[in-house]
Amino acid sequence: MASTTAKAMVFMDANTPFSPATIDLPQLKEGELLVKNHYATICASDLHTFYGRRQSCGHSILGHEIIGIIKALAEEGVTDFFGSPLKVGDKITWSVYAHDPLSPTSKKGFPQKSEALYKYGHEQMNETYKLNGGFSSHCHLRKGTTIFRLPSSLTEKEAAPLNCTHATIAGALRLAGNLKGKNVLVNGVGMLGLSACAMAKENGAAQVWAQDLDPEKVAFSKAFGADHTLLFEGLESKELIDTHGEIDVIIETSGVPEAMEKCVQLLGIGGTIVLVGAVFPQRDLSVNAEYLVRNLLTIKGLHNYIPEDLAAAIEFLTAAASKYPFESLVGKEFPLGQLDSAFEAGNEGGYYRVGIKP
Amino acid sequence: MASTTAKAMVFMDANTPFSPATIDLPQLKEGELLVKNHYATICASDLHTFYGRRQSCGHSILGHEIIGIIKALAEEGVTDFFGSPLKVGDKITWSVYAHDPLSPTSKKGFPQKSEALYKYGHEQMNETYKLNGGFSSHCHLRKGTTIFRLPSSLTEKEAAPLNCTHATIAGALRLAGNLKGKNVLVNGVGMLGLSACAMAKENGAAQVWAQDLDPEKVAFSKAFGADHTLLFEGLESKELIDTHGEIDVIIETSGVPEAMEKCVQLLGIGGTIVLVGAVFPQRDLSVNAEYLVRNLLTIKGLHNYIPEDLAAAIEFLTAAASKYPFESLVGKEFPLGQLDSAFEAGNEGGYYRVGIKP
Repeated sequence: MASTTAKAMVFMDANTPFSPATIDLPQLKEGELLVKNHYATICASDLHTFYGRRQSCGHSILGHEIIGIIKALAEEGVTDFFGSPLKVGDKITWSVYAHDPLSPTSKKGFPQKSEALYKYGHEQMNETYKLNGGFSSHCHLRKGTTIFRLPSSLTEKEAAPLNCTHATIAGALRLAGNLKGKNVLVNGVGMLGLSACAMAKENGAAQVWAQDLDPEKVAFSKAFGADHTLLFEGLESKELIDTHGEIDVIIETSGVPEAMEKCVQLLGIGGTIVLVGAVFPQRDLSVNAEYLVRNLLTIKGLHNYIPEDLAAAIEFLTAAASKYPFESLVGKEFPLGQLDSAFEAGNEGGYYRVGIKP
Repeated sequence: MASTTAKAMVFMDANTPFSPATIDLPQLKEGELLVKNHYATICASDLHTFYGRRQSCGHSILGHEIIGIIKALAEEGVTDFFGSPLKVGDKITWSVYAHDPLSPTSKKGFPQKSEALYKYGHEQMNETYKLNGGFSSHCHLRKGTTIFRLPSSLTEKEAAPLNCTHATIAGALRLAGNLKGKNVLVNGVGMLGLSACAMAKENGAAQVWAQDLDPEKVAFSKAFGADHTLLFEGLESKELIDTHGEIDVIIETSGVPEAMEKCVQLLGIGGTIVLVGAVFPQRDLSVNAEYLVRNLLTIKGLHNYIPEDLAAAIEFLTAAASKYPFESLVGKEFPLGQLDSAFEAGNEGGYYRVGIKP
């Protein structure tokens, strides 16, 4: 007989051990799915929440880089992003949020900021919706979640970060515009930055520059498509770049004010910097408007992504997984019951990602 | 017998009277034109140069908001922007710069910043090119200048500011993207701002907001398509805007750091601010990157414009001149010989533009 309960590791408060819980499986309403979580990875923002570096929302199930297998669907059926009906047993990924496509902000093209947004791995558990994250055996997907079937060629370690890391970078590259023949610099080569190097290369960038504080990390970025590497140390980088032509696009993943300010200076005429890393409280940037105007520069902020970006990320990874060692980025794995140890391992910073097998 | 000389008022140095000069008409090389200046207006940047508020380039002929009538063409002929041959007697406007379309920066889409750019009304006179501005009887147009025939329906007062004010605003609206159904705020309603109000309205903006320090100026902007007016005074504006929906696009023409910082705060989710006013030395802006990221905001700088923008500006003005009192913006006229008095009148700030009849 199929189990009627899920097992979860509940986030209680910052710096407090996760609390194991048994939770009744939900009754599915219109548009909803029940998923057996198949694999999850710990994202930097999970670490920020757990270690109290950003505000949390009370009891919740963290984890939003997830893939799963459909266990049950609402009676009238549910379709994927492309309109094709989903069925029990499909292996899927999904947008980190459920949104109402008819809400004013969604209709403006910003579903990730729409009214009554519901974000997996970020919401307080309530009477109806408890299984809302990756660090549990099941996830309860709400109406308005954008769902994609996973290609069988992707491994679980490759696929889990799709709906956060890779989709966000796909959104950043959408904002950056056509990269064909452009010089692209990626600042900060953690998980987001490595994805950006590879995706920029696959999208036709002429040359990709990777810049970081950490010499080992920048060296490693060469395996992900970086043609040139720079250590973040004063103005030397500018001279190095001058010998290779102007930087047209910067994807900034560090979120560090000093780095963002320096990056603006590295842009050539008409250049664009897309900010994706600045998702934590910080001092203001100092930016000269006359410099922006005379150099025709653009600064764009991106938070999360739109469903089309997740589609682009899946397409990218399906084509590129064999070329770049994305699988190796999940450096350690833990069973769900050892989530505390997994977070400790993640927070030590030695791995790009730590995997959780529910 | 046709005269073989031109009369010019030469800019010698900041705060120094213009010097009348008689200059030999040039021999035309390939791609060049000789134009009889028909009308010119004094732009704010002419005033900045003359009054020493920005660096100048030594002896030159100021004035770049010009229209003229072709007096002579290079032997092999010259074509307009659309490829149609020009002829003596055509009334024309032209891009404020001559550029090489094959230069690397032009090919990237930024002709206004291309290598060896030559800007009318801004360049030191040399042996070959002396007649390079609007405040003289003739102008010597170089190869790589983009030329447009003027529609006969436009008056000289309407047409003179086309190749600076209106073309720059057309560029700003190009950067802002499709305005259909958008709420647009124009900050600073001098000449650029009035053009922005009207052009945003004509481009399909749902509602246009005009904001300025000066109550008379904002009130006047209603004649140029502004639906709502705001006085720049603290947070009140934000509350006013909240009752009418979010601001999607801001065209910032003041260039004042405090104003630009406040404008960023007025943008709704996914909003874009285009900076065009910040063309003078100033303190850095204080901008929070987390705010840009979480609100999906874009900041774009624009300086000058591309030839397509001048084409769009002419199209706009031809269709819209009867709806908006652009002609009235030239508040006073002087003959070329009284250029010093004209600059004095312009600098007093009582007129949007002062006209010069060469």
